[in-house]
Amino acid sequence: MKRFLINTAYEGTRYHGWQGQKNAVTIQGVLEDSLSSLLKHPVAVTGASRTDAGVHARGQKAVFDTTTTIPAERLPLALASYLPEDIVVTECSETAQDFHPRAAARGKLYCYRIWNEQWPDIFWRRFAWHIDTKLDIAAMKTAARAFVGEHDFASFCAAGSSVSSTVRRVYRVQVVQSNSPLIEIWVSGNGFLYKMIRIMAGTLVEVGLGRRSADSIAEILAARDRQRAGTTAPPHGLTLEEIWF
Amino acid sequence: MKRFLINTAYEGTRYHGWQGQKNAVTIQGVLEDSLSSLLKHPVAVTGASRTDAGVHARGQKAVFDTTTTIPAERLPLALASYLPEDIVVTECSETAQDFHPRAAARGKLYCYRIWNEQWPDIFWRRFAWHIDTKLDIAAMKTAARAFVGEHDFASFCAAGSSVSSTVRRVYRVQVVQSNSPLIEIWVSGNGFLYKMIRIMAGTLVEVGLGRRSADSIAEILAARDRQRAGTTAPPHGLTLEEIWF
Repeated sequence: MKRFLINTAYEGTRYHGWQGQKNAVTIQGVLEDSLSSLLKHPVAVTGASRTDAGVHARGQKAVFDTTTTIPAERLPLALASYLPEDIVVTECSETAQDFHPRAAARGKLYCYRIWNEQWPDIFWRRFAWHIDTKLDIAAMKTAARAFVGEHDFASFCAAGSSVSSTVRRVYRVQVVQSNSPLIEIWVSGNGFLYKMIRIMAGTLVEVGLGRRSADSIAEILAARDRQRAGTTAPPHGLTLEEIWF
Repeated sequence: MKRFLINTAYEGTRYHGWQGQKNAVTIQGVLEDSLSSLLKHPVAVTGASRTDAGVHARGQKAVFDTTTTIPAERLPLALASYLPEDIVVTECSETAQDFHPRAAARGKLYCYRIWNEQWPDIFWRRFAWHIDTKLDIAAMKTAARAFVGEHDFASFCAAGSSVSSTVRRVYRVQVVQSNSPLIEIWVSGNGFLYKMIRIMAGTLVEVGLGRRSADSIAEILAARDRQRAGTTAPPHGLTLEEIWF
């Protein structure tokens, strides 16, 4: 028995998330079915991150155990014909038998995208939240700085999570707008609470709309109360870009 | 009766082109249905460019006649709720009664996109042709220069067209690759033959793959024979970006 580590990219649009309820189509489920067909034995896949319904990924990591004789580096190409067009496995390597991607993850990088123009863009409508009112990017950049560091993110955690601690370290939050209506909020940290990045993005958008002041983030963090933060931004703007061990 | 000129953007993925056969869903047909519902009278839409099945647009122009009292500038917002998510009307203005967008078009700008990496990208798979072999961009840039100017493009015209002349003027062809696997071929000209840009793109890709020399374009043009040019690149890489009058 060998343990294989894969990198996978997917468009979350038509899935009920990475790990779903029974009777729902999930990315984990489709990967397991495809791998089982290719490898001729049942395969259980464990991901590093349980992305929500509608969230995309370019850098999801996952492991599975196999008895195959297919070399790890050949697996992505062999698997491609078993996968639907919206899921791609881009890398595969053999890893330690006891390697667990969720426990081993030292950092994750997400990007939340916003299309800030009167009309949605045909290229970005599945991958960016369309906001037709002009956002104040400078205020959003100022507000974003308050997230950086180790904080109790209880105010930015959706109900329904059962974590023992709501303290997390955010390494970096960058609000980027190039010469285009596309705004990107890049967030990296050692781990994230349930819907944390989407609540951060929703709150930053309220700052950008002038509904909250740019210096309100510190108070919201201190309150440790979900009611104090902004709305949860929709899932389709979020992409898991990278996980490192 | 007034004549309105609109700008429309659409994702061509699920349509049988701008102007299709009967019993097929076309962009023109959907626009006519939506406008008829909004304006409460039958509407016939005439486009500046008949984009093929699967081709996208951000800058298609079209006209229609109406007796409505809705001001032209309010029409895009009023129409939005009648349109599906993959079609947007971004601008509307009143124009001359005899304005015909196809006759009046002085230039058109298209972009053909290629995703040049081993694996398709989740964001670009609907909007760029995936080519997994590394292309020689320098050779493609050199080859592209031969298209510029007034030429007989008979070698780059698909069968099934019934134009009186195959002479067209290409203003500019730019092959652009930024720091990403995305390659863009921007082409502007005074008009284009049936599938002309897709055959140009397919031929440039064969240059990029080393199957043709970078200086072969002049000979292909001189031959005036479709058999001498390369394959027709797939429609989903092509976007009509702009039309000017």
